[in-house]
Amino acid sequence: MLFPAMNSKRIVWSHRCSHTDTENSMQFSPKFDATGLIPALAMDYRTQEPLMLAYMNEESLRMTLETGEAVYYSRSRREIWRKGATSGHIQKIHKILVDCDQDALILLVDQMGAGACHTGHRSCFYRVVPFGDSLIDGSPVVLESADDGFTFDAEKVYGKK
Amino acid sequence: MLFPAMNSKRIVWSHRCSHTDTENSMQFSPKFDATGLIPALAMDYRTQEPLMLAYMNEESLRMTLETGEAVYYSRSRREIWRKGATSGHIQKIHKILVDCDQDALILLVDQMGAGACHTGHRSCFYRVVPFGDSLIDGSPVVLESADDGFTFDAEKVYGKK
Repeated sequence: MLFPAMNSKRIVWSHRCSHTDTENSMQFSPKFDATGLIPALAMDYRTQEPLMLAYMNEESLRMTLETGEAVYYSRSRREIWRKGATSGHIQKIHKILVDCDQDALILLVDQMGAGACHTGHRSCFYRVVPFGDSLIDGSPVVLESADDGFTFDAEKVYGKK
Repeated sequence: MLFPAMNSKRIVWSHRCSHTDTENSMQFSPKFDATGLIPALAMDYRTQEPLMLAYMNEESLRMTLETGEAVYYSRSRREIWRKGATSGHIQKIHKILVDCDQDALILLVDQMGAGACHTGHRSCFYRVVPFGDSLIDGSPVVLESADDGFTFDAEKVYGKK
């Protein structure tokens, strides 16, 4: 009997060994957390602008590697989430990086369309968190804008929420 | 009786309301996961090079905002982790970004010393994950180098593992 992965002609990766092996090895052995997910930060491959942080399960990571387009796992909808399936805002992968303990990924992507964020901003990271002594006055921290506003009409692209 | 946060002169933030409020509001209301953590990706503020992905609990996020230096929570050691406490490789915060649903942070930092990674690499993201059809041959995915190797001697800086 063939192993399922060989049978179905799918990408396979290694099982995890020791911590040091994972750091030094050139074998890909991604670590999924207790809920079966690994975080992936998408960045614009030209400007290095951070676009969004989402999660992948084994299946969506495999689909990402196989298709060259970002596929995540939606924690709220509990399903595989092909980025851009609704909006057309596909993320074409240029490079994928993995960190020392192989429990985080960076996707350097070509962001199709007007933006990555479902709110209508180009990047999900559209607000700045201020910091420093001046905040210690007992009033809640107020965010600041990090961009010039919306790049597309989210309601038109995604429909009513 | 004063609230503890006011009493101790510490930074405070808002409680979370609805999902839409969290996206549109300028009130900072970070979302911690079921284990009390929020992911934070540190990037070089000059080059936008991704350096490391780590986690913060409420206390370490508050310490980060108060001190202007990255403080994380070590999941393996289960303790507050002042980045650079052992190595001197402190991360001075230049800017903090928060995403739409306020459950992920980007730290734009000035990385002190030779690197962010405990392995001796400047960045934890020192390996590339290849992708594409050519990988579908049944053999495990092999990583590629993403940098020019070590920038410091991890054993000297961190001591024996």
